[in-house]
Amino acid sequence: MKALVLDGHRVALANVAMPKASDECLLRIRVAGICGTDLQMLDGYADFNGILGHEFVGVVEHAPPHDAHWIGTRVVGDINVGCGRCAMCVTGVKEHCPQRTVVGIRDRAGAFAEFITLPASNLHAVPDDVDDRAAVFVEPIAAACRILEQVAIDARWRIAVIGDGRLGLLIAQVVSTVAHDVTIIGRHDEKLALARALAIVALHTNASITDRFDLVVDATGRPDGLARAIEIVRPRGTIVLKSTFHGESSSPLWPVVVQEVTIVGSRCGPFRKAIALLASGVIKTAPLISRVVPLEDYEVAFAAARHELKILFDLSR
Amino acid sequence: MKALVLDGHRVALANVAMPKASDECLLRIRVAGICGTDLQMLDGYADFNGILGHEFVGVVEHAPPHDAHWIGTRVVGDINVGCGRCAMCVTGVKEHCPQRTVVGIRDRAGAFAEFITLPASNLHAVPDDVDDRAAVFVEPIAAACRILEQVAIDARWRIAVIGDGRLGLLIAQVVSTVAHDVTIIGRHDEKLALARALAIVALHTNASITDRFDLVVDATGRPDGLARAIEIVRPRGTIVLKSTFHGESSSPLWPVVVQEVTIVGSRCGPFRKAIALLASGVIKTAPLISRVVPLEDYEVAFAAARHELKILFDLSR
Repeated sequence: MKALVLDGHRVALANVAMPKASDECLLRIRVAGICGTDLQMLDGYADFNGILGHEFVGVVEHAPPHDAHWIGTRVVGDINVGCGRCAMCVTGVKEHCPQRTVVGIRDRAGAFAEFITLPASNLHAVPDDVDDRAAVFVEPIAAACRILEQVAIDARWRIAVIGDGRLGLLIAQVVSTVAHDVTIIGRHDEKLALARALAIVALHTNASITDRFDLVVDATGRPDGLARAIEIVRPRGTIVLKSTFHGESSSPLWPVVVQEVTIVGSRCGPFRKAIALLASGVIKTAPLISRVVPLEDYEVAFAAARHELKILFDLSR
Repeated sequence: MKALVLDGHRVALANVAMPKASDECLLRIRVAGICGTDLQMLDGYADFNGILGHEFVGVVEHAPPHDAHWIGTRVVGDINVGCGRCAMCVTGVKEHCPQRTVVGIRDRAGAFAEFITLPASNLHAVPDDVDDRAAVFVEPIAAACRILEQVAIDARWRIAVIGDGRLGLLIAQVVSTVAHDVTIIGRHDEKLALARALAIVALHTNASITDRFDLVVDATGRPDGLARAIEIVRPRGTIVLKSTFHGESSSPLWPVVVQEVTIVGSRCGPFRKAIALLASGVIKTAPLISRVVPLEDYEVAFAAARHELKILFDLSR
């Protein structure tokens, strides 16, 4: 089968062996999306070699006998696969299993390929009214929804999302479902204009900010994101860190102590909630899609993903 | 009156004018303690010039007519003085008033002096069974107690305190009042031995740590404290930051995101709680005192405070 394989810092289209389904379901990928994390991995983050890609929608083609009812179902898939036995797994937190594999990120083949395998317990059926190009956003929307699980957001809070990229624009929409004063702060006029078209207040990062924010989400994917968040959060406010990147972040930390700021690391989130938000129509994804290309156009796709919004690989045609 | 005055990075004993009491109480200082923050301030933290010192016990000598009942009372004093009118002050959080002054730290004369003034609302009477050399620990014990207000500690948690200095040894004792599995991690054999004498498990920082901790408190006062805390906290665990220092901290932040760690900045705390803990005898302070000197011996005192535990100035004699 065709697949985009990362080897060191280089990605290439290759013909690789079909995955062995064993005890897992075999999915034929329909659409997959490029995430900022994929780009960070090209730059050395996570030290992964193998098939990239962890945002996808596909159809179950084969399944073990006890999971045969999944065959033919259009699905998205939770990307963390736990050992099933450790203290984390038995309490339902497989995303923190120390032995976990993660689709396209850690010891498990990714979704920029014709096929992928996953345990049935990771699958979520996609409702008919959520098309492939929306369903492929379930994983990042779930990551945005994780914030709602971690922080008890007061509807009256002033909330800032730093970073006007694909994740920032999803997070701003998701937090707007629970609070109305949401501002996105970024560097790109055209992305800020898109945020405004989505009814989100948008400020250029150079704009002076006088009123501080109760909650600041760093979705910049940049080492300086935390320092900026510290500048604009109120005393006793909360910062959610979403950026993963290779290397260190330098920041004066005394304001975190003096202002008693809480910083919350945030990763994967609830797929069901994300599917429900997509199905309800409250989260807009179509305006975020900048290109839909075949797997063969991966070089253009990865280059474009550095400055454009969401690039999708369409494998369904 | 005599006072230790910080000017740039130099501290010197000076004869300064008596403070004008105006609407505040005038206290005669009995004992004052050197805190790590004082040393950080000598190194440039907080950009303060004036009389140093914010850990003290004294006796009220003068008071405005409506506070006259304080005269003669032995007291400790909350170090933050708010404007009384802002959103923070009216909700009782004067330590985050943007206009606040802070004894010996920000726009207010400190306690390494014969006299100091404070509003009566900042004063707390010291019970007779808490002597001066214990009462001077109320401020740092209150700062340790702040952790109990910020983090809902489960009695079954494994807790680590990094930093075997004066604050670390107090924090370890305070968290031991709500959880029994508390380990202090430090670099100094003699301070670790003292921790063990206080019935706290003590590990050298080079010891290998296999079981991660639910809660890690950074009381190192060092830029690398956070990175160490990130290494030993469990997924979804909590780090409390107590260290303030001049300059930046460099740390890889992706583990905070991937492991969904929560980092809580923590500063000043509840004096009443600290006084109650001291009065109950559960917190031991006498073993932490390494020297008691007159104000005139400040050069030796500040030098010793770099490596010894608590140095006290006794002004009562």
